[in-house]
Amino acid sequence: MSSGSYRGKGADTLYKHSISVGDTIAISTNDGEEMQGVLMPRYESASDRYIVIKLKSGYNTGIDVTRVKSIRKIADTVAHKAAKVSQSQSRQTDNTLPKIALISTGGTIASKIDYRTGGVRAALSASELYASVPELTAIASVDPEVLMSEYSENLVPGHWTIMANKIAEKVATGKYDGIIVSHGTDTMHYTAAALSFALQGLPIPVVLVGAQRSSDRPSSDAALNLIAATTFAVSAPLAGVFVAMHANTSDDAIAIHIGTRVRKNHTSRRNAFESIDTEPVALVKDGKVEMLQKEEDDKKLAQRHSEKLKARPSFDSRVALVKYFPGIDPTMVYGLISSGCRAIIFEGTGLGHVNKNLFGVLREAEEKGVHVFMTSQCIWGRVSMTVYDTGRDLLDIGVIPLSDMLSETATVKAMWALANTQDLKKIMQQNIAGEILSAIPI
Amino acid sequence: MSSGSYRGKGADTLYKHSISVGDTIAISTNDGEEMQGVLMPRYESASDRYIVIKLKSGYNTGIDVTRVKSIRKIADTVAHKAAKVSQSQSRQTDNTLPKIALISTGGTIASKIDYRTGGVRAALSASELYASVPELTAIASVDPEVLMSEYSENLVPGHWTIMANKIAEKVATGKYDGIIVSHGTDTMHYTAAALSFALQGLPIPVVLVGAQRSSDRPSSDAALNLIAATTFAVSAPLAGVFVAMHANTSDDAIAIHIGTRVRKNHTSRRNAFESIDTEPVALVKDGKVEMLQKEEDDKKLAQRHSEKLKARPSFDSRVALVKYFPGIDPTMVYGLISSGCRAIIFEGTGLGHVNKNLFGVLREAEEKGVHVFMTSQCIWGRVSMTVYDTGRDLLDIGVIPLSDMLSETATVKAMWALANTQDLKKIMQQNIAGEILSAIPI
Repeated sequence: MSSGSYRGKGADTLYKHSISVGDTIAISTNDGEEMQGVLMPRYESASDRYIVIKLKSGYNTGIDVTRVKSIRKIADTVAHKAAKVSQSQSRQTDNTLPKIALISTGGTIASKIDYRTGGVRAALSASELYASVPELTAIASVDPEVLMSEYSENLVPGHWTIMANKIAEKVATGKYDGIIVSHGTDTMHYTAAALSFALQGLPIPVVLVGAQRSSDRPSSDAALNLIAATTFAVSAPLAGVFVAMHANTSDDAIAIHIGTRVRKNHTSRRNAFESIDTEPVALVKDGKVEMLQKEEDDKKLAQRHSEKLKARPSFDSRVALVKYFPGIDPTMVYGLISSGCRAIIFEGTGLGHVNKNLFGVLREAEEKGVHVFMTSQCIWGRVSMTVYDTGRDLLDIGVIPLSDMLSETATVKAMWALANTQDLKKIMQQNIAGEILSAIPI
Repeated sequence: MSSGSYRGKGADTLYKHSISVGDTIAISTNDGEEMQGVLMPRYESASDRYIVIKLKSGYNTGIDVTRVKSIRKIADTVAHKAAKVSQSQSRQTDNTLPKIALISTGGTIASKIDYRTGGVRAALSASELYASVPELTAIASVDPEVLMSEYSENLVPGHWTIMANKIAEKVATGKYDGIIVSHGTDTMHYTAAALSFALQGLPIPVVLVGAQRSSDRPSSDAALNLIAATTFAVSAPLAGVFVAMHANTSDDAIAIHIGTRVRKNHTSRRNAFESIDTEPVALVKDGKVEMLQKEEDDKKLAQRHSEKLKARPSFDSRVALVKYFPGIDPTMVYGLISSGCRAIIFEGTGLGHVNKNLFGVLREAEEKGVHVFMTSQCIWGRVSMTVYDTGRDLLDIGVIPLSDMLSETATVKAMWALANTQDLKKIMQQNIAGEILSAIPI
């Protein structure tokens, strides 16, 4: 019998009631509140005054031990139950639940929780992640697999190739109704864009999901995001690459974003991810998928099983993203040209402008076959380089405007296009995976 | 008698009624609508079907000439009237209106309108800008001056020095209740930050104001922004550097932002500027200033005439802003070090992370005395580098987290600190002008 990472007051209370981390418990408080949920492990440095349980809603809550009037165990640890579920699933391959592959790549969603020791670890395996969210067993039969275990700031284009290949392999089995990729949030939008280009013609949804707060913390968003991602993956009519994260700071809705149109816009909030210049595709609320795209948008989103997967998972990193700022030294761009860079994505000001003192180096880039593309550091809106002299001069030089494509998506797309296509300029201006909402303005 | 740039149907209608651009006119339409306003010039390539008038609200509206039932002149051209006002002002220096200096630097707000020819020009002088918004004469006695005429994407740190010196000169006269700087919107937030550091201890408000749509277009935001900036400059209790732009897409409120906490977040909308991680200081509505800052924030904002101006207007451009992206080549950062860069502002992912393959070059930067600072490309929120291994490793290397400072503001601040202070590292971590809302986390 272990009370997990609990120490001090919290541990005493749990020990007294023979309760282990992972058990389902009922707590009555002095002020008459009744709560039921799964006992969660505590982060090692946390205050020992609180007992943390995951409620049926998926929300974690911390209860001050001094408020506890009574506490009792309702069921065994989730880990044990999940193990049993897993065994029964392997016996019942013909069960009627939809089938999902859960590919774990690392990040907060898969960190700092360990049901065996109650302690904190850097990585949680996909099967543990699955086991820690028992609600999933009611939605889908999940095949978990750990592909890698990286904080997402450490992912490079080579990792996108590994992920794309693994997903293509899972798709090829024909067994799955959807694929979930658990991922660190820091670069999840870059990966989502990468998979959108690498895996065109997907017959099923691939949903990236992360967490802003690790599973062991009260108010973790891990479980709800994972449940919603799975709900969408099994029941949405669409195929393609999506990102599932909290839609707001409360816990009532998870937004499903198009993989090429989403951005991490807050360092810490649970609703850090936002669709840019468009609405999310869907909200998942109360276990149901509510589609948000208007009718005229339907044709832009691929329907399930309407296409055949063409995996082109290579990326060429010889691409630079350069954010313009007043006082920027043209030497920086000369350096990129001489270091072998093949394409430069500029984040210009406003409608797509940079200082005229960069015109010389941009002309040299074009002469040397280094293509320069323009996006806007405004984030929202679209570049339009015909309105002012500066924009027209840049067009004359050969700089190509990318309409409303996000600079992050443009960078990833250029890396993909360099590796897989012959005409970078042309491909960059064609909409492939929702990355261009408005036609390219010339 | 000139009908300005009007051609075709529009010109015919105006010619018939002996009306010139700049005249105040009354129009009745076939469907019973009555409108009064100043006849505006048309952009030369625009459809000749519409007559554009500026309503009393400051809003421009286009009226289809086929809708016009009757049209009559109410008053002479604004240009003539403004000239008369200007003469009368020079005679009445003891008038009771507050006194404002209007410094014009260029941009959309000062472009594409010319009352003398009715045509379109690249630059409108400050006095013409003033004359084109006759409402200003009721709010303040305005001294207009053209300092420069640049699209803001062409401004470099040297221009900030020129502006700071000019403002300091105006402040030194002791004559003005406030100073308005009309500016292109593309880099207005960079300039606002620059002036915030260069002009500490301002006794009066300095308000930067721009327009997303030029004065000659229907739905131009120029007049309303200028009126609100002037209203704030003459009546707000505060001193410091601010930005005045539309608060939303309608025309009922102009937001006043702190100069170091504002960002252009949309390429084209009138409410493109947003305060980040804080509310605007005030809204200007119906000609009145509505302060928004909570009481606990009051002490952070300097009161009018509470301080004495210390102008330190120099900037050192040997600073680079680098946005991190997956696949970034460390060579790019080596290049910055060898080209003489003295400080690097990184826009990291999430809480302030970059790939571990940059640790080597960041260590080398620190060894060579090139200080590296961390902000977040999320834009909202704050970096916190103690939560994950990556952040702690970066702190060990010597990378300095900048809390919730905007990357654009951080870049400008480093340029200012390099030129004016001895201890860059220390100054960057101290709040000088509202650029740090939360204490720097270590």
